[in-house]
Amino acid sequence: MDNVLRTLLDGRWADLRERTRKRLGVLEAPPPGVDRERHRDHVLRQLRVLASAGHSGVGFPVRHGGDGDFGGSVVAFEMLGFGDLSLMVKAGVQWGLFGGAVQALGTGQQHERYLREIVELDLLGCFAMTESGHGSDVQHLNTTATYDPDTGEFVVHTPDPSARKDYIGNAARDGRMAVVFAQLVTSGDRHGVHALLVPIREQDGSPRPGVTIEDCGEKAGLNGVDNGRLSFDHVRVPREALLDRYGHVAEDGTYSSPVEGANKRFFTMLGTLVRGRISVAGGALSATKKALTIAIRHGESRRQFARPDGTEVPILDYLAHQRRLLPALATTYALTFAQEELVTELHEVFGGDSDNDQRKRELESHAAGLKAVATWHATRTIQECREACGGAGYLAENELPQLKADTDVFTTFEGDNTVLLQLVAKGLLTGYRDHLGDLDALGMARFVATQLVGAVIERTPVRALLGGDLHDRTWQLKLFTDREEHVLDGLVRRLRKAGEGDAFEVFNNAQDHVLRAARTHVDRIVLEAFVAAIERCPDAATAELLDQVCDLHVLANIEADLAWFLGHGRLTPARAKSVTSAVNRLCAELRPRAGELVEAFGVPMEWITAPIAQR
Amino acid sequence: MDNVLRTLLDGRWADLRERTRKRLGVLEAPPPGVDRERHRDHVLRQLRVLASAGHSGVGFPVRHGGDGDFGGSVVAFEMLGFGDLSLMVKAGVQWGLFGGAVQALGTGQQHERYLREIVELDLLGCFAMTESGHGSDVQHLNTTATYDPDTGEFVVHTPDPSARKDYIGNAARDGRMAVVFAQLVTSGDRHGVHALLVPIREQDGSPRPGVTIEDCGEKAGLNGVDNGRLSFDHVRVPREALLDRYGHVAEDGTYSSPVEGANKRFFTMLGTLVRGRISVAGGALSATKKALTIAIRHGESRRQFARPDGTEVPILDYLAHQRRLLPALATTYALTFAQEELVTELHEVFGGDSDNDQRKRELESHAAGLKAVATWHATRTIQECREACGGAGYLAENELPQLKADTDVFTTFEGDNTVLLQLVAKGLLTGYRDHLGDLDALGMARFVATQLVGAVIERTPVRALLGGDLHDRTWQLKLFTDREEHVLDGLVRRLRKAGEGDAFEVFNNAQDHVLRAARTHVDRIVLEAFVAAIERCPDAATAELLDQVCDLHVLANIEADLAWFLGHGRLTPARAKSVTSAVNRLCAELRPRAGELVEAFGVPMEWITAPIAQR
Repeated sequence: MDNVLRTLLDGRWADLRERTRKRLGVLEAPPPGVDRERHRDHVLRQLRVLASAGHSGVGFPVRHGGDGDFGGSVVAFEMLGFGDLSLMVKAGVQWGLFGGAVQALGTGQQHERYLREIVELDLLGCFAMTESGHGSDVQHLNTTATYDPDTGEFVVHTPDPSARKDYIGNAARDGRMAVVFAQLVTSGDRHGVHALLVPIREQDGSPRPGVTIEDCGEKAGLNGVDNGRLSFDHVRVPREALLDRYGHVAEDGTYSSPVEGANKRFFTMLGTLVRGRISVAGGALSATKKALTIAIRHGESRRQFARPDGTEVPILDYLAHQRRLLPALATTYALTFAQEELVTELHEVFGGDSDNDQRKRELESHAAGLKAVATWHATRTIQECREACGGAGYLAENELPQLKADTDVFTTFEGDNTVLLQLVAKGLLTGYRDHLGDLDALGMARFVATQLVGAVIERTPVRALLGGDLHDRTWQLKLFTDREEHVLDGLVRRLRKAGEGDAFEVFNNAQDHVLRAARTHVDRIVLEAFVAAIERCPDAATAELLDQVCDLHVLANIEADLAWFLGHGRLTPARAKSVTSAVNRLCAELRPRAGELVEAFGVPMEWITAPIAQR
Repeated sequence: MDNVLRTLLDGRWADLRERTRKRLGVLEAPPPGVDRERHRDHVLRQLRVLASAGHSGVGFPVRHGGDGDFGGSVVAFEMLGFGDLSLMVKAGVQWGLFGGAVQALGTGQQHERYLREIVELDLLGCFAMTESGHGSDVQHLNTTATYDPDTGEFVVHTPDPSARKDYIGNAARDGRMAVVFAQLVTSGDRHGVHALLVPIREQDGSPRPGVTIEDCGEKAGLNGVDNGRLSFDHVRVPREALLDRYGHVAEDGTYSSPVEGANKRFFTMLGTLVRGRISVAGGALSATKKALTIAIRHGESRRQFARPDGTEVPILDYLAHQRRLLPALATTYALTFAQEELVTELHEVFGGDSDNDQRKRELESHAAGLKAVATWHATRTIQECREACGGAGYLAENELPQLKADTDVFTTFEGDNTVLLQLVAKGLLTGYRDHLGDLDALGMARFVATQLVGAVIERTPVRALLGGDLHDRTWQLKLFTDREEHVLDGLVRRLRKAGEGDAFEVFNNAQDHVLRAARTHVDRIVLEAFVAAIERCPDAATAELLDQVCDLHVLANIEADLAWFLGHGRLTPARAKSVTSAVNRLCAELRPRAGELVEAFGVPMEWITAPIAQR
């Protein structure tokens, strides 16, 4: 059964996963207690090992030295999450963000010139988008790139301290070049944010003239990644430095773009970042799986307090301990299946040359939603695992402190979770592409108030939700769908009603409702992915086990949101109580299976060094 | 108003708090990025500064060089929580645990010989209770202390690896002596756990013969504290090494004790540890206040996204951001007032020579409950603060990573929170002293099933809870009291009904209910403390502000538990919705006051070095 479960979890990219597991066996862990500079050294050396092993090219075109497997590049990243997370993030910066930006925003000659060097690590680079003053609101970056037709160059400039590029991976030490996002100006006209390739260091590693580089210094975790700050003092780069797939500047300074409208262009460019978000969700899940493997193994072997017969009780026999770990384990299964669907969709939408805007929009929304939900799940679950391992969980040797410290920023980078969920909600509210990415929320409330007329949707009658078996999957799906629709309906009504007032205030006063709409939407999608996975499970006994895991996931989700179901007449008080009983019962039933459920994640045991997890 | 708030928060020990704030100004922070060994050095040097400044003696008797202010010793510890938390914990180990054990479990001659040396730091020591195999279940420690009447010595021995003393502060480097908890054996009879003073190192720092010392190595945080492991191979100590207030061994090996029954004796000794738990709650609150000060100041100055008029919005203007921080701020006020009451009660019960068992029992229960609730609050709030500060919150320079890493073990040490809440619940269930500390839960279910007849309690009729103003304090108090009583009633009924089965299973199957009973009990006590604080507030405008803060605390608590109130007919669905609206409204109303509310905590600004918190 172990193999069936593993195969199901490994999914479409099972071969690549197995190859990466073997590759992880060749990598070296950073020495315990290593300091920051040596950790950075170590990570760079391991990065070279990965490049030599062919790990770096998965997502790049075959003719530039890659495998041409766009979805696979996410899987390859995600699998690194079983090892040193600094290495995973550094790989993501180099090949996913820097290389990915050149690939997605650049064109033929730029690909020819740079991609192979990037894949083979002859050129290390940065993805310089975030500024000290603008993190979430990247549409309003202040760095400028002004075209000078006299010399045929762009002048890249940091006009004030808030425009300094900040938290940039690869910047403090290793990067030689940066993809710099800046407001493009030609002939006095602004064309919005564009990306340019700007060399930042000489071959000897010293900063190039006009470039100031600072080190972000010690972070909570991920200290093997050299995050830094970049400022530009009228730095000149040739016209060819502009990554010009979505915006081109002719020699005379004439601007042209295949995408009309600065706003739409901006979000088209940003859309190419969707892979980064999906990758972070995957990496967060890998770290969560590792933490759960450690905590469950500890819970099975650690004993405390005796039964009446004198035998001491494994702590995982305690209901409170099961409740800490098993619903989180079940939800990790759910999110893994949702992640697999998302990667597949990414692969199909961006891997080919499809230009289906509707699918892209949905993909972006799902990516934003799953990134937020998966990274919060990681933060909470790893915290729970730490506490569930008591004092042992606080020791570095048991790995949970590093997992916690390294993953803590996942809720922030590649899009702050709160901002991402608003993006999801706005997608739900409008379905209108031009408003999709309108991160600043303004105009949205007004738009909703004046234009959205609330489509009449075929609804499940509430009475159909009231009875029946809590374990009935059809009922569960209906319940999740109904919740999502009802929350969204309520939000639309609320925004319309308040639509007369100040648009900012209207939207802001409903922000809790907005986040909730997004959350319930993601919950439904995740559940559907779990159901689909059970349906494709080839083995009856495994499917039965997964049915229980899915029930635990669903019922724990309902229990956490009981107030809503009770308050909206979806559950009677008696039925609400039975949800809690069912969660308790499922915990007891799945407790003997917990070991095999974490085993199936396939975290390579050489990367689980925690003494408390050994047998 | 600032001063009125500060004075109210500073409470009975305001002078000592002010003195300690000044003292913190003299202390030095560990250098950024300091490694473990140098951090330990640094902390030891700062500990000596504290001792010279008279900080160490607060809780010790005047005739041994102290101030005789038992409650004050908790305050002195807690105030160190604004500085380096490693120093706070090291001070707690040396003076609170090690010194406190000698003081509480020892007698005259032992006090004469050791207390002054401990206060003045001429003798550094450990509190060696926890073993690798027994952390929560300390009644079943395996270390033995066997009396040898031929030599008049005790033989202290570690019979197996699980009996190794673990996580012991001061053990890895600085401690010269340890209070070792061991099963006392004389003439072949076991008398339960007792404490002995065992020298562990020579003057030159090398381990004494028969003593093996290991280093716990790197931890998630608190790396300035030298936690280690101690094993004893038939180490002999004189008869006078037994701390003999609660158990005496005569020269011929005859055992005597003023407390009858090994069980009661054990819990009497353990009762002396109550100060440690209260101290941890206080330290957790100090760290929380520091984190909130940083996050609120950042939220006031950091701007992101623009209003329609083009001005960028301070992130604390966003409802979602307010919801992250302001209810947590309100609850920090509530817990601070509850902590003040608890310290006062400790001071009166243990500071004098009172021997009121009922008061002691209640104090122990309240200490256990508040420790659990305050430390979980700290863990959650500091996490929220980190995320609320985005990428900046992940940088070491902004202090939140260290606060998070240092406080993470607070939910574990001085009693695992889950175990502590069970202790509270058992106190509620029985009120019978002998069963109070019965941590192993066995017999409890049987006892409840067979003996507890469920006192008839005058209850608030449910209909009295249904209407009225959500901000009515009397209603709020009734609601909390009613919830506590109803949950406890339900638990008793559930245990009685199931009482026929296996006692372990019965209790275990109700564990979620048990924890809930404890939690609702603590919530009621905390609210009462808040109400009392408002009543003693001398200034009408300040009282009005505190009224709002209290409303936010209460309504956020109700909102988090809406499922219960709805499911038990305490709130109608419409009223439940109005709770959420009221929380939103209070967030908006208190947002302009957030700055002064954190200012009033009085965290010394020289200990807030985070660039994002500067003005």
